[in-house]
Order: sequence, then structure tokens, then C-alpha cells
Amino acid sequence: MKVRVEIMLKSGVLDPQGKAIGHALSGLGFAGIGDVRQGKLIELDLAEDDPEAARSAVEEMCRRLLANPVIERYTVRLDGDPVPS
Amino acid sequence: MKVRVEIMLKSGVLDPQGKAIGHALSGLGFAGIGDVRQGKLIELDLAEDDPEAARSAVEEMCRRLLANPVIERYTVRLDGDPVPS
Repeated sequence: MKVRVEIMLKSGVLDPQGKAIGHALSGLGFAGIGDVRQGKLIELDLAEDDPEAARSAVEEMCRRLLANPVIERYTVRLDGDPVPS
Repeated sequence: MKVRVEIMLKSGVLDPQGKAIGHALSGLGFAGIGDVRQGKLIELDLAEDDPEAARSAVEEMCRRLLANPVIERYTVRLDGDPVPS
């Protein structure tokens, strides 16, 4: 099954890449640009078909390799999960 | 309003970073790892409150700065949009 992992810097952690994007957009003439944050999006295709097993495997992948939990937060999203508001 | 932009390499474009992640996960002992793709996730906080105006502004930002439309596809997602399946 397909699993998406979203990895963003925790709020409070300085995001120079996001700041650079914001400045570049303002420099191009776009108005009303507030905070900009850049993160990573990883799409995995897993042989595992059970949603709960897939979720717990991917959460372990995040802790062990994909994310740095000191400064990053991660969200594991299976097909059909709602987006956060 | 908050807008999220997801930028992934088009399918067919080689993604060495995704491949490296897949190999590293297999090397750590995770089984059943298929294709892995890595992309970018950009969260923008815009002064614009009208959803359609915000979407069209962000699509122009993607074309002019955020994405390389030759090799990347982008998805603009406003708060409340459904996730694709």
C-alpha cells in the first residue's frame, strides 16, 4: 500500500530555506506572503497491506531514519486519511 | 489562509534521493519496501482570504519559482481539500 510521510521542522525551529522562499516570492512581486516553511514529503510503496501494520512500520522508519525527532515532526498518512485543517 | 504545496518529481523522472532512502531502509532491516519517492512540501501563510484567489496566486508561484514544471508536478492544497487516493 502507498504511504505518505510529511516531515516539517517543529514550530520554533528556524527554517532558513522557508525564509529564503518567502523573500524570493516577495521579490518577484507577490504580496501578502506571511510565514513560509519547507519540509519533505516521502511516498513509500509497501508490500504490507494491513493499514495498522503499515502505519506502525512507517512510524518506526521515521524514528530510525527519515526524520530527526529533535527538530522535526512527522505525519504518516495512509490512502484515505483526512488532511489536517 | 494556509496553503500547502506538494512538489514531486514526475513519474518517469529518476529520483536518486528516493532510491537512496529505499536502500537505506532495506539495509536497516525493513522488508517489503517498493518504490520510494521524495518531494518537497511548502506551507505558505497568505494574507489572501479568498480560496480561489489564493489557489491561483499559489499556482503562479509554482510556475515562476517553486517548481520546475519540466520535471516536477505540483499540487496546491487549501485547508479542507480532500487528499487524493
